Amino acid sequence: MSIKNILIEMKNMSELMVDLAYSAVLFNSKDAAEEVLKLENKVNSMNYEIKKESLVAARSYEDAEKLTALLEVAEAAESIANAAKDLADLVITGFKPHPVFKMVMSESDKMIVRVSVELDSDLANKTLGELLLVNRTGMRVIAIRRGDSWIYGPDKNTLILPDDTLLLKGTEAGADLLEKLASGACSLEDISDELEEDED
Amino acid sequence: MSIKNILIEMKNMSELMVDLAYSAVLFNSKDAAEEVLKLENKVNSMNYEIKKESLVAARSYEDAEKLTALLEVAEAAESIANAAKDLADLVITGFKPHPVFKMVMSESDKMIVRVSVELDSDLANKTLGELLLVNRTGMRVIAIRRGDSWIYGPDKNTLILPDDTLLLKGTEAGADLLEKLASGACSLEDISDELEEDED
Repeated sequence: MSIKNILIEMKNMSELMVDLAYSAVLFNSKDAAEEVLKLENKVNSMNYEIKKESLVAARSYEDAEKLTALLEVAEAAESIANAAKDLADLVITGFKPHPVFKMVMSESDKMIVRVSVELDSDLANKTLGELLLVNRTGMRVIAIRRGDSWIYGPDKNTLILPDDTLLLKGTEAGADLLEKLASGACSLEDISDELEEDED
Repeated sequence: MSIKNILIEMKNMSELMVDLAYSAVLFNSKDAAEEVLKLENKVNSMNYEIKKESLVAARSYEDAEKLTALLEVAEAAESIANAAKDLADLVITGFKPHPVFKMVMSESDKMIVRVSVELDSDLANKTLGELLLVNRTGMRVIAIRRGDSWIYGPDKNTLILPDDTLLLKGTEAGADLLEKLASGACSLEDISDELEEDED
């Protein structure tokens, strides 16, 4: 991976980790916390990669000065990631949530949910443009984990595949719907029916 | 301020700081970096407040256990804020940006801009719903600083006042437009005219 791509990944991952980590604590979600820990390992190894690449790339003092800036940015990204990991660790080790978390949660009303797309799910093999999840469920896909790699800020052309792990942000009601859709327990048609009934 | 409100503020501020700090580095923007430093002071003093409040609130060992979780969350928020400050400091002290930053920037294509709303600006005394800035300029208001306080995630009913500082996210072209609108150098009508000309 090029230095450029490592840096983009470190930025995206550390931002996602902060989002996920707060969500993990406020909703006491081990799911979200586990994703944070996975991402943290990746950020650490990318910081190591960027150090190696930089040392090899430096040819002059001028190079070195610019590469120093790069290393400092990577270091800060790792610090952000570490702080997010500290938050996630609280959830993993089983902390006693302060009652105020529930209050913060209900005011922010945005939660992050992680779902795994089953083979017979209605989400599989469709693009986000076809699925219109925001309209249908109020949930927005913020990232997709496919095996060991991540897709950030997916757009309407992004195709969902079976076995993808989706991270979505939205309301608690939408999170329930998404879990049913991803597991194949209900179809897009079922949801449209439900919405129509609600409107009656 | 209650513990709940302090926690909400710390969460919002630290998230905004990460966003701003990366923007500051990638676009070498002293404006964004200065906002990060302002926010960091606030986060630090809020962490201090939360410690004081917690010590006063603890009446039993059970209270203490829950308050410990709260203190750890506040501590992590401050760590996130500190890491963001480290990034912003690079820009303030005048670093030599690595050429790769420009490349990352052009791929992310989202920048943050800070504008100050003048008295005779077309933005003053209108709600975001009336202004339709996203449609007109491609820029979304992510936060508003009004004197010493902040408004996060403003909605269509949020009123813009003269002297407000707006933080917006969007494209470089949109950023130029916003600066002109905020300073009063051009009106909403001018912009509509320009758009119509572009369409011809």
